[in-house]
Amino acid sequence: MDAQKSPVLVVQKYGGSSVATLERIRAVAQRVLDRQRSGDQVVVVVSAMSGETNRLIEVANQLHRLGRDAGQSAGGIARGTGWVAPLRRDDEFERELSQLVSTGEVVSAALVAMAIQDLGGQAASIVGHQLGMTTAGSFTNARIVRIDAARIREALAAGTVVVCAGFQGLDQQGNVTTLGRGGSDTSAVALAAALSADECEILTDVDGVFTSDPRIVADAHKLDRISHEEMLELASLGSKVLQIRSVEFAKKFAVPVHVRSSLNNQPGTRIVPETPDMEAVLVAGVALDRDEAKITLTNCPDVPGTIAAVFSALGERGIVVDMIIQNASREGHTDVTFTVPEAELQRALETLGTLALLTVPGVTMLTDAQVAKISIVGVGMRTHAGVAAKAFTILASEGINIQMVSTSEIKVSVVVDEKYGELALRALHAGFGLDRGPARAS
Amino acid sequence: MDAQKSPVLVVQKYGGSSVATLERIRAVAQRVLDRQRSGDQVVVVVSAMSGETNRLIEVANQLHRLGRDAGQSAGGIARGTGWVAPLRRDDEFERELSQLVSTGEVVSAALVAMAIQDLGGQAASIVGHQLGMTTAGSFTNARIVRIDAARIREALAAGTVVVCAGFQGLDQQGNVTTLGRGGSDTSAVALAAALSADECEILTDVDGVFTSDPRIVADAHKLDRISHEEMLELASLGSKVLQIRSVEFAKKFAVPVHVRSSLNNQPGTRIVPETPDMEAVLVAGVALDRDEAKITLTNCPDVPGTIAAVFSALGERGIVVDMIIQNASREGHTDVTFTVPEAELQRALETLGTLALLTVPGVTMLTDAQVAKISIVGVGMRTHAGVAAKAFTILASEGINIQMVSTSEIKVSVVVDEKYGELALRALHAGFGLDRGPARAS
Repeated sequence: MDAQKSPVLVVQKYGGSSVATLERIRAVAQRVLDRQRSGDQVVVVVSAMSGETNRLIEVANQLHRLGRDAGQSAGGIARGTGWVAPLRRDDEFERELSQLVSTGEVVSAALVAMAIQDLGGQAASIVGHQLGMTTAGSFTNARIVRIDAARIREALAAGTVVVCAGFQGLDQQGNVTTLGRGGSDTSAVALAAALSADECEILTDVDGVFTSDPRIVADAHKLDRISHEEMLELASLGSKVLQIRSVEFAKKFAVPVHVRSSLNNQPGTRIVPETPDMEAVLVAGVALDRDEAKITLTNCPDVPGTIAAVFSALGERGIVVDMIIQNASREGHTDVTFTVPEAELQRALETLGTLALLTVPGVTMLTDAQVAKISIVGVGMRTHAGVAAKAFTILASEGINIQMVSTSEIKVSVVVDEKYGELALRALHAGFGLDRGPARAS
Repeated sequence: MDAQKSPVLVVQKYGGSSVATLERIRAVAQRVLDRQRSGDQVVVVVSAMSGETNRLIEVANQLHRLGRDAGQSAGGIARGTGWVAPLRRDDEFERELSQLVSTGEVVSAALVAMAIQDLGGQAASIVGHQLGMTTAGSFTNARIVRIDAARIREALAAGTVVVCAGFQGLDQQGNVTTLGRGGSDTSAVALAAALSADECEILTDVDGVFTSDPRIVADAHKLDRISHEEMLELASLGSKVLQIRSVEFAKKFAVPVHVRSSLNNQPGTRIVPETPDMEAVLVAGVALDRDEAKITLTNCPDVPGTIAAVFSALGERGIVVDMIIQNASREGHTDVTFTVPEAELQRALETLGTLALLTVPGVTMLTDAQVAKISIVGVGMRTHAGVAAKAFTILASEGINIQMVSTSEIKVSVVVDEKYGELALRALHAGFGLDRGPARAS
């Protein structure tokens, strides 16, 4: 640490793997205390210990299964994500589920505070109603609408390290709510905004944000900085580094976010507002998302409202639809293909099964969970044409068939057969020269 | 259920063993729902699942041990009670410990509410800040000073079964506090008082309050009723049926308490105000407490304040002293013997070790954890002499030496060598004719 630096207020978020064992909790405590002893004020935000949230959801699922015939149980672990989907979804049940799983973060927060105390520091956990975080929306996917950080400020002023339970808030009625998977990121950024913190550090088990997933693409590079827009696109894809909502918060409230490793002191990736020079970077990263499933409805009557009814029904159940493609297949009929999270496929099919559309003669429904989405992200696409064409050429040269395409201002996504997912990722990473760092516009 | 009965408001408390597994949680849910469907309003108070509180304390202890030399660790499981004593005791740490262990009851409450919902009922868990239970005193042994039950009343009025997390409250500053081991009993009785409930049922894994511990005394009888005073004495002894503070609450606020089995529908034991006819019952029960340890200080200077300093120091550390005996041994000197909970022995010795008294030449300290306390309880003692004498005669005839004696208005307690504890219990139970039901005055 630089002895001359001015003291700052930092929010440090530690994820589940950083607090997975008591030894790691102690290491977190030491890191926090070192930072505080360098003269800074530190607010810590913690997730539940690795696996704890899933364990609690699984307990709820087991309880629920007791009351059902063995064969009826749906849900389970969604492949790749480690996310155990709750079996029941009504409001009353989700209220209890939030109450239940929120205990995971309370346990982490209390243990981290204890560990800091054991190391001679002064610390207090701040959880649930003590956080002053008011939410709205559903119980298990609530959004933060207001933060009263008075209690945290008071503790900081007294020299205390404040250890906040992430992932949780309270609605207007005082019910415990949770912010959705990865919600502790959003807790951290929102608290940083409320406290006007100088920085929000997201401490994780990787060194930062990479040009691609280093477990698949060996020569992926760590990015020193990335724009909010690019991070938003990456967060909405296979990159699990940050919850997308946290990036929206960071952008909206101009919170400087620094994604870095909890295991070393190297700088990681700073998420920053876009600057003109960033446009020189054509592609910042490529991402792979294996957790989507494709649904196709063929021969739908091509009359106004038909397709709207499909997406309204899914939306009412809270099922997020990602890519949508619609084609008129023959006179008066249309085909529509879209993707949903693989973990939601079962519920999506149940929902669609209730629609009158499915009973129309000729209408058929096809599903394919064996798909992968690969996305190329970069703000340079705004001013440089030809990125999509180049991507298609690269994939074609590898003999990979493209099933769906969707583009945004700074992103090109393609859906391919899942077995070609990793190959496609590597080919695009190399094809755009990311093995030499972020691809520059030529 | 009687179809003609008027609807009542009942508070049902289920202990850790009643919610130890998901199957048992479902059975609790069914019992609660049956009661509600019979027309009554039901407030449930739950403990943490069996072993969960100890598990959480043990996690905290493990964390604490990481920071200490292996040999230094004190505390551990106190024999007989299953109570894991926390290793650290300062206020800052106890705040976190309460935050941590309170999650056990939150988990139970959410799961019981879910199970009721699964059975088609309407239920909501009410925990922490939602309970409206304000406490004072220490973080881990807090006492209830006020209950605002508005939220519970509202839910009841809407036909909801309210499932409250026991054992926890909030202090004036909004910190989570816990009510001490067995605190869920007190939560239940206090809530019953605040709600003016018609009855508070303590549902447990035994059929009620017995004349003695049926695991030791085979012919122990279940009591149909017992006075508050007698229950207070028994609760303060080996009988673990109820937390003593809950009985005080029941007495103070005239809450009808019914201790009964969660496994059947038989009536259990009603805890009732004393009535004149109760004086005919000489001895209601005999109890054995193996969890005390004896400390003797010999040759203390017999000057004012010497002994007061001993008990002040222990009191400041929150160590409860039970029996105290003082004898002048020789001119100007005195011996004092007292008992503390065995789990507190180590801390008591540490505390005494800091006193100047121990450095006075000639003063010695003896300890003995191998003692048992046997107590005879009955309101009839108020009006009938000779109970103590009869007890001493019974023990003498068995050749059991009495180390300490203490008496109250309705209790005689003796301390004996622990190896004679069970024998003494059986002898007194038989000697007072309790094998034929509560002993009547002759």
